[in-house]
Amino acid sequence: MNKLVSQREDFSAWYNNIVLRAGLADYAPVKGCMVIRPYGYGIWENIQSILDKMIKSVGVQNAYFPLFIPESFIHKEKEHLAGFSPELAVVTYGGGKELEEKLVVRPTSETIINAMFSKWIQSFRDLPLLINQWANIVRWEMRTRLFLRTTEFLWQEGHTAHSTHDEASEMTLTMLSIYRDFMQNSLSIPVICGKKTSSQRFAGALETYTLEAMMGDCKALQMGTSHDLGQNFSRAFDITYQTKENKLEYVWQTSWGVSTRLIGAVVMVHGDDDGLVLPPVIAPIQVVIIPIWRGDEKGKIMEAVISLKKRLRDTTGASGLPLRVYVDTREEFTPGFKFNDWEMKGVPLRIEIGPRDIENSTVTIARRDERTRTTVKNSQALDSVVKTLDEIQGNLYLRAKRFMEGNTYTVNDWNQFKQKTGFVLSHWCGSTECEANIQSETNMTIRCIPMDGEEENGSCILCGKPSNRRVVFAKAY
Amino acid sequence: MNKLVSQREDFSAWYNNIVLRAGLADYAPVKGCMVIRPYGYGIWENIQSILDKMIKSVGVQNAYFPLFIPESFIHKEKEHLAGFSPELAVVTYGGGKELEEKLVVRPTSETIINAMFSKWIQSFRDLPLLINQWANIVRWEMRTRLFLRTTEFLWQEGHTAHSTHDEASEMTLTMLSIYRDFMQNSLSIPVICGKKTSSQRFAGALETYTLEAMMGDCKALQMGTSHDLGQNFSRAFDITYQTKENKLEYVWQTSWGVSTRLIGAVVMVHGDDDGLVLPPVIAPIQVVIIPIWRGDEKGKIMEAVISLKKRLRDTTGASGLPLRVYVDTREEFTPGFKFNDWEMKGVPLRIEIGPRDIENSTVTIARRDERTRTTVKNSQALDSVVKTLDEIQGNLYLRAKRFMEGNTYTVNDWNQFKQKTGFVLSHWCGSTECEANIQSETNMTIRCIPMDGEEENGSCILCGKPSNRRVVFAKAY
Repeated sequence: MNKLVSQREDFSAWYNNIVLRAGLADYAPVKGCMVIRPYGYGIWENIQSILDKMIKSVGVQNAYFPLFIPESFIHKEKEHLAGFSPELAVVTYGGGKELEEKLVVRPTSETIINAMFSKWIQSFRDLPLLINQWANIVRWEMRTRLFLRTTEFLWQEGHTAHSTHDEASEMTLTMLSIYRDFMQNSLSIPVICGKKTSSQRFAGALETYTLEAMMGDCKALQMGTSHDLGQNFSRAFDITYQTKENKLEYVWQTSWGVSTRLIGAVVMVHGDDDGLVLPPVIAPIQVVIIPIWRGDEKGKIMEAVISLKKRLRDTTGASGLPLRVYVDTREEFTPGFKFNDWEMKGVPLRIEIGPRDIENSTVTIARRDERTRTTVKNSQALDSVVKTLDEIQGNLYLRAKRFMEGNTYTVNDWNQFKQKTGFVLSHWCGSTECEANIQSETNMTIRCIPMDGEEENGSCILCGKPSNRRVVFAKAY
Repeated sequence: MNKLVSQREDFSAWYNNIVLRAGLADYAPVKGCMVIRPYGYGIWENIQSILDKMIKSVGVQNAYFPLFIPESFIHKEKEHLAGFSPELAVVTYGGGKELEEKLVVRPTSETIINAMFSKWIQSFRDLPLLINQWANIVRWEMRTRLFLRTTEFLWQEGHTAHSTHDEASEMTLTMLSIYRDFMQNSLSIPVICGKKTSSQRFAGALETYTLEAMMGDCKALQMGTSHDLGQNFSRAFDITYQTKENKLEYVWQTSWGVSTRLIGAVVMVHGDDDGLVLPPVIAPIQVVIIPIWRGDEKGKIMEAVISLKKRLRDTTGASGLPLRVYVDTREEFTPGFKFNDWEMKGVPLRIEIGPRDIENSTVTIARRDERTRTTVKNSQALDSVVKTLDEIQGNLYLRAKRFMEGNTYTVNDWNQFKQKTGFVLSHWCGSTECEANIQSETNMTIRCIPMDGEEENGSCILCGKPSNRRVVFAKAY
């Protein structure tokens, strides 16, 4: 294995190194694809389980739609076609024969789902129709990075149909706020919510809302999106319903999604030069217990270890689920090696039990986030573990928030603008031309027009024309 | 909607009708593909959640491998290639360009997973490696049927690597027994376990174990398989490990899987002429409450309904999870219509609350399986519901077992053999030629060489040569 590169030296090399060495993912034999290894998939399972409950709590039901989309469907909504055409993987042979109509491997499922919606929706009684699916997605990518941009990735995509535009808009915002809660409370990642500019909108949407987070190198990552689709797809796929007044109208729609990219965000927001740092809520292992013995102390120590493991597993953490505990009994490694190994894997808490702990009825608890070690009475171990896991969850969020705020600048001057790294709040006149020129000169894009930004008169950072609101600029993944 | 066809009239038309009308699935725009609708997907989610825990209980971890497999990988194990070639879907274009190497959409993941195993496995310390994935699979099928045989389906596939053949064989049987328990206890479906004959083995396996169930038309359905792969794939993909004695050896492997086909089995084993009959353990809705009122009784009745719903949802069923309860408040339908509707959907228990129930502090409970109705005191409703759901689960299993046993015949005479419908236990000499001739004359295949069958001397049902064991013949899906 290579020596670990530090974040400061080369953030991108650091990232790849951590993902591989912590066992989150591996490169697949097919260019641009990844294998999600058990430890990385364990994070995804925790993400799924929490988010799935949140999505269902607003009445959405899961379903499953086909992987293959007839090529003609992609052509039905013209902005959608233009947006996705360069990224498509196409099946031309099936069962040994050339296909009459080529099949596109889904780059997103608006078209196939809406083809079904047009069949299922007849009357106002069928609305709202609120559907989600957990699925794999393929977008042919030239430059790929594990979790952040791969040819195949996993995600959830919600698709809803409503009788009014107001209701659809509200759904778009409800999902945005579910995503924000999830990112802040489960991933400990602060996000800025806002609208995308027209040039960055989802292909076929009236309005795209985004959640943007700051990574450890001060670049932005788009964490998820929620789209107000208006009637663009319902017109293209002829999805109409009979109103109470017996009129035929097109439905109003939304779609929204987050993907395995979130795992990359967790790595880049919380990780440090020693490896991953995982928020307890999504950590596959929340507590690792390392027995430390020499010679004949093993029996007594393992007895204490196993009893503690059992007590911890019988305890429910903040999630209401049993604590996830692992005992590292490998005999071929020293305790020191194991400490490093579990720090690399970002396990929030490490408990050491050695001969002195047995003597004194204590255990030693080490926090991954702050690198502190404390010794507590064995009888208080449970309380201490539950409390400390909660503290870590909150501390990671606050740390990330401070980092984001410390690297966010309000800038009114073009020369200053060009020198900043981080989130830059500046005025923008609203023209696509200025947006493009700013990007080509600085590599910064408008991440969003923030929703909680106040109105403020100012002038465009590039052209000087009037503007009534600052937007968020940043270099982005 | 068409009138329901009875099972007796046309089992196959009955099946399609039920699947569509109960809202389990729908035909997709792509030939041979299906859409799994929320009600059907809800069954799949319950199957996943129970089976996933069982699989993890023996130390298996989930991971995710790519959808696309380089065409050359499929060619590495020659029996595997021969078995799957006719069924492959092939991607030839990606990102607007013709690909240098074509990509096969996974028909099963042995090849791609073993390519990774050869990278991950170095020493005896890396073994056993026990991996499972939940994924979509594509096999180009000519004649398709919703859930039973579709071009794309969902499944789990386990792949393991071991240091000895004994350990791998044991794993094959462990998974077989997990599947059997799951099918009998969660799906209420009795199964016959046994080995496949060499002509019916998985392409590349030393030995294939199968679980066979009898459907309502007396035909067999293969419910799942568990394969002892020997060293066929480890030799093809060069998966070696260093033993404790520093020798290099090939690993021994297994693979095993069940799919969304299980949903089709539940329909065909338990369903009747009025629709689905779902085992409570996997039913998306276990109890439906139907308020019955005229005029101004609504307030009082809804109060009782909501209070009962709350009490039921706070109760845990046999699974340890809260009961899944739904209240049907639709005002556009009569109670009679709703009864039929929920019977079609196979909800195990229906609770009716009407004016007389309020007067007498009772509720009326109707069982879907036996079509019985009983009135119980409101105060005993909870106990009664939990107890009755358990009874239904057990009753469905016994009913299916009786049906299977009643349609299983021990036959020694070729003329009788040709007339039987069901499972036929007969002697077979062991030759592939006899097996093929029996199939071409009767359309019956050897479902398995049963594991719990006793040794018995006899003579082959076709050629009369000696045989020491009966095998299970049946027409199959």
